[in-house]
Amino acid sequence: MGRSTDEQLEAKEMDIRSLSSSHRQTQNTPYIHKVGLAPKQNLLKEFTATVKETFFADDPLRHFKDQPKSRKFILGIQAIFPILDWGRSYNLSKFKGDLIAGLTIASLCIPQDIGYANLANLDPQYGLYSSFVPPLIYAFMGSSRDIAIGPVAVVSLLLGTLLQNEIDPKKNPVEYRRLAFTATFFAGITQATLGFFRLGFLIDFLSHAAVVGFMAGAAITIALQQLKGFLGITTFTKKTDIVSVMHSVFSTAHHGWNWQTIVIGAAFLSFLLFAKYIGKKNKKFFWVPAIAPLISVVLSTFFVYITHAERKGVAIVRHIHKGINPPSVNQIYFSGDYLLKGFRIGIVAGMIALTEAIAIGRTFASMKDYQLDGNKEMVALGAMNIVGSMTSCYVATGSFSRSAVNYMAGCRTAVSNIVMSCVVFLTLEFITPLFKYTPNAILAAIIISAVIGLIDFEAAILIWKIDKFDFVACMGAFFGVTFVSVEIGLLIAVSISFAKLLVQVTRPHTTILGKIPRTSVYRNIQQYPEATKVPGILIVRVDSAIYFSNSNYIKERILRWLTDEEEQVKAAYLPRIQFFIVEMSSVTDIDTSGIHALKELYISLQKRDVKLVLANPGQVVIEKLHASNFTNLIGEDNIFLTVADAVLTCSPKLVEELDVCLEKETEKLTGIKI
Amino acid sequence: MGRSTDEQLEAKEMDIRSLSSSHRQTQNTPYIHKVGLAPKQNLLKEFTATVKETFFADDPLRHFKDQPKSRKFILGIQAIFPILDWGRSYNLSKFKGDLIAGLTIASLCIPQDIGYANLANLDPQYGLYSSFVPPLIYAFMGSSRDIAIGPVAVVSLLLGTLLQNEIDPKKNPVEYRRLAFTATFFAGITQATLGFFRLGFLIDFLSHAAVVGFMAGAAITIALQQLKGFLGITTFTKKTDIVSVMHSVFSTAHHGWNWQTIVIGAAFLSFLLFAKYIGKKNKKFFWVPAIAPLISVVLSTFFVYITHAERKGVAIVRHIHKGINPPSVNQIYFSGDYLLKGFRIGIVAGMIALTEAIAIGRTFASMKDYQLDGNKEMVALGAMNIVGSMTSCYVATGSFSRSAVNYMAGCRTAVSNIVMSCVVFLTLEFITPLFKYTPNAILAAIIISAVIGLIDFEAAILIWKIDKFDFVACMGAFFGVTFVSVEIGLLIAVSISFAKLLVQVTRPHTTILGKIPRTSVYRNIQQYPEATKVPGILIVRVDSAIYFSNSNYIKERILRWLTDEEEQVKAAYLPRIQFFIVEMSSVTDIDTSGIHALKELYISLQKRDVKLVLANPGQVVIEKLHASNFTNLIGEDNIFLTVADAVLTCSPKLVEELDVCLEKETEKLTGIKI
Repeated sequence: MGRSTDEQLEAKEMDIRSLSSSHRQTQNTPYIHKVGLAPKQNLLKEFTATVKETFFADDPLRHFKDQPKSRKFILGIQAIFPILDWGRSYNLSKFKGDLIAGLTIASLCIPQDIGYANLANLDPQYGLYSSFVPPLIYAFMGSSRDIAIGPVAVVSLLLGTLLQNEIDPKKNPVEYRRLAFTATFFAGITQATLGFFRLGFLIDFLSHAAVVGFMAGAAITIALQQLKGFLGITTFTKKTDIVSVMHSVFSTAHHGWNWQTIVIGAAFLSFLLFAKYIGKKNKKFFWVPAIAPLISVVLSTFFVYITHAERKGVAIVRHIHKGINPPSVNQIYFSGDYLLKGFRIGIVAGMIALTEAIAIGRTFASMKDYQLDGNKEMVALGAMNIVGSMTSCYVATGSFSRSAVNYMAGCRTAVSNIVMSCVVFLTLEFITPLFKYTPNAILAAIIISAVIGLIDFEAAILIWKIDKFDFVACMGAFFGVTFVSVEIGLLIAVSISFAKLLVQVTRPHTTILGKIPRTSVYRNIQQYPEATKVPGILIVRVDSAIYFSNSNYIKERILRWLTDEEEQVKAAYLPRIQFFIVEMSSVTDIDTSGIHALKELYISLQKRDVKLVLANPGQVVIEKLHASNFTNLIGEDNIFLTVADAVLTCSPKLVEELDVCLEKETEKLTGIKI
Repeated sequence: MGRSTDEQLEAKEMDIRSLSSSHRQTQNTPYIHKVGLAPKQNLLKEFTATVKETFFADDPLRHFKDQPKSRKFILGIQAIFPILDWGRSYNLSKFKGDLIAGLTIASLCIPQDIGYANLANLDPQYGLYSSFVPPLIYAFMGSSRDIAIGPVAVVSLLLGTLLQNEIDPKKNPVEYRRLAFTATFFAGITQATLGFFRLGFLIDFLSHAAVVGFMAGAAITIALQQLKGFLGITTFTKKTDIVSVMHSVFSTAHHGWNWQTIVIGAAFLSFLLFAKYIGKKNKKFFWVPAIAPLISVVLSTFFVYITHAERKGVAIVRHIHKGINPPSVNQIYFSGDYLLKGFRIGIVAGMIALTEAIAIGRTFASMKDYQLDGNKEMVALGAMNIVGSMTSCYVATGSFSRSAVNYMAGCRTAVSNIVMSCVVFLTLEFITPLFKYTPNAILAAIIISAVIGLIDFEAAILIWKIDKFDFVACMGAFFGVTFVSVEIGLLIAVSISFAKLLVQVTRPHTTILGKIPRTSVYRNIQQYPEATKVPGILIVRVDSAIYFSNSNYIKERILRWLTDEEEQVKAAYLPRIQFFIVEMSSVTDIDTSGIHALKELYISLQKRDVKLVLANPGQVVIEKLHASNFTNLIGEDNIFLTVADAVLTCSPKLVEELDVCLEKETEKLTGIKI
């Protein structure tokens, strides 16, 4: 009898075994590859590689490799003055393009410069000075072929606001100007330093969205400031926020507006906007809006001259100093109270100027598909402003509108800047006195029509569509600039951008993975509703480096996934979770806090009788897990190349457990039988 | 003749076709799954989910769900006072554990408190006050079962340094004390506010490595400060850096040291260190180092009393005010100059105190496997310090050493803190006069032996092994504290930690992937040297969200991979790169700048006649690619679920191109023939 029960039992066992072992066989056949552990690198090498990737990511010295010394010297000189490189292949056909482009941007820049100088609370000639020296320096040192250098609206406004917070430009014009040169000097130093120390990436912290909002806000603010000249108001607020300006405008409505000024301004503003419309409608007529400002200036000046409208209260430019830039080295504050103030203002203005120039440079470089070395570019811009500050210029940078015109007019190299510079030189030397009768209203109209282009509705809509957080940053910058001040707007933009990064590094995504049917691929079950969970196994992907800033969150989030899952499993009478697979593909790095958190996770899981399994840890991570002995703690054989491998290895164990259950049952059976 | 050539040709073509099509068939058979696009979520829902995950990640209200109102009220009260929850299941066996633990930590805390008050430049009784009220409050509101509340060395030192920068404690003791209460009040407010607004994650920004370095530096600084009491020096520097202290010590060596003091101090320090050694050697004797300080105090006090050593220049405590905490509400500065100063100092001290308490709470919670709600804990600590500031206490928090003793003595709940508090109460009421003859050297020895435990060599070595950057942060904090000051050390630690995060978000990893033999898995070819590249296809994985801070870098880095690869390919006469697969599994998010960069990448690749293919974009990313129309730009069919799918689809196209080449050749052939 004992024998037959034995046989019976054996048969039953066979049955069970075959069931599970067939399962096991089919699953064990696939080839399971081990997680790679690259040979350990030398510490110094590793350090060098990190520094190189952080500061010299673009490998600026790659051309210098394996070259003789004399060649290296020439390459070095060429690196500082790219004109020596591209200048050698310069030819007449290129010059034709540059000449036309240069003349076009010159005609656009002269009236703009006079207006922008006004925004910076400086006399008109300082705008022209800044369009003479800096473009020349840039042409020798810069590497963008399309950028048009000179004063720009936003930087002029920013500089004007920041400077007048320190010194009243009306009461102390000389000191004000000296502080302006000091700020320009330090703006240049800031730019050159950032470039030289390869810290160019810092300007990337001003996000695209923030720049869009900031620019639009600045455009509104600048346009509102122009209401002074446009309406012929004599007493105007010094503040830039929309509330103060509107109060200023309407409180003077009864007695302060000058209808003759308004008529002239409105007429020419309509003309300018119409010209802009034509240029937009048909790209061939890009030159129409480009020369419209100069035409307006000529016509209106002539008109005022013959009608003597200035006697009717139409404000005119009155006086522009004749002659080229006087030196101003001795005017920069190298000591005293104003040194620090100039330094602070210079840093802010320099950074904003950089942001604009680099954005322009990058845009056109990608349109013509050439590479732009951001850091070299910064050195060029810095040098240009340092020299500028010594030759009576204020902060110059790349102008959006003029660069676009330059590009469309067919510029080929930076020679177009030299052409423009020459035209400005001639203007300064010979025709500045003719600007005497130019009405301020025209300058206001020119500035308004120029800054309208800075409001980019389409970009704002796209930002809304793509990323709501970005939109908040954009609007924060916009309302900050329009309702408070330029600096506050800037501060808001930078803070929101930073907050976003902080949220990213403190609250990374974690997702539950499921198997996509008919594949061995495991994906987010929210994105792929058809993906199915594997019974008894919970797979979670962590989507970020595990650092001190998020290690606790990740640990607690993972445990919460498990708790939630266990509740569901209990409710549905499914097998209990026995394996917890953490998919680590996206975990690019881990630090000591992260390993600490993993250890705590392991302990907590052990207390719940759940096995921790890792899938696809990357190179850096597996190295550190080894270094900290964590691999030994959880067992090397619990680390797999893919989730699929991990699941394949875990499921047979699940089946084995099922075996044990069945065996126990059979024992019970035999116990009864015997 | 035409016929036969046709036939010949056909045969040849068939040959070629079969070659390539067999290839094609085997590769086309696998099932290719499309990338999932989850149904678009409601904007409000999405926003709520983000806010919830950021601030309420631990879902603190989960217990309140689906409960009647009365139950909700009770749960609410219990959430604020957890003692009402666990107190109901409190029993005698638990009390036994708590009583022993409470008595043990009381014997440890009394001498420590007197010494720590000295570190904070306060009279000794204020240390004892701070061990009476705060532990009581915490026992009712806190949720950690193992933490021992009271003044701690590091916070006392920090508070002392920051306060004496403002007011001289010798000259204006009353004002100094008032400022201390003000700082304590605002420390409490800071802690409670952080907890209430769920901003607890902010303390995670002080990384583990930085804390290790900071603690070790603080321990050295505190130990050095004790040299004053230990050597019996009367005139001592107010600075805390090692250079000033050492100068102070050695300049007084000839006349300022008191040998009697040194003998007493050295003898008892040896005793304390020996007791510590015994406790470490055998965990059973943990109580030896715990009661050793009290024994030292009793013995040395008795010794001084009978020998009248104080007449030989041995400094003694002299006077401790008898009686419990007097109220101090009216002493807090709620207006005036000191309000702001107290506020600033309070924030710093409050944050450091929090860091220490939360670290302790988490450590013991994970050892006993219970959950600790960090934010609730902060509210409890904050409330405790607010009440403390009104009852003559200075900032109290969880002490590392006493909590460990508490744990080892078998505490079960926060009742051990109540027991300790009662002992301190009895001490204040009855035995403070007995401390009159306690020599300062003993207090110095007790503090030295206590803070030595804060120097964690093992942790520092582990940090060095795991992460070099962390080690720099650790050492920066350490040397900052020892060589400059506590605040500077803290600043260095926080700055380096932040710099690390910035490097992470500006310079993410990108790696080239290759196929691992005998699998369809693509992995980093550096980690897996056996992985092989697919000819004609370059596969790059981007390991980070693509944000404004890194979008330009990623674009340029990817293009550089391509340039490098193309050079290699040319050198080895391999087929030209035609497909560029970007593996996006780890790209958890993308913003407008990122999409901008992708577009520029697409244009650049198009110029080079390379096709851009995306693999496995995640849920958020694919949504945004759709929203920005980028999917239409590159073509929906160029986005794949896996790299393997992408390669499978691209390789036949490569073969087709080969076909075209062959066809052209055959045409040439037939052209000659006809």
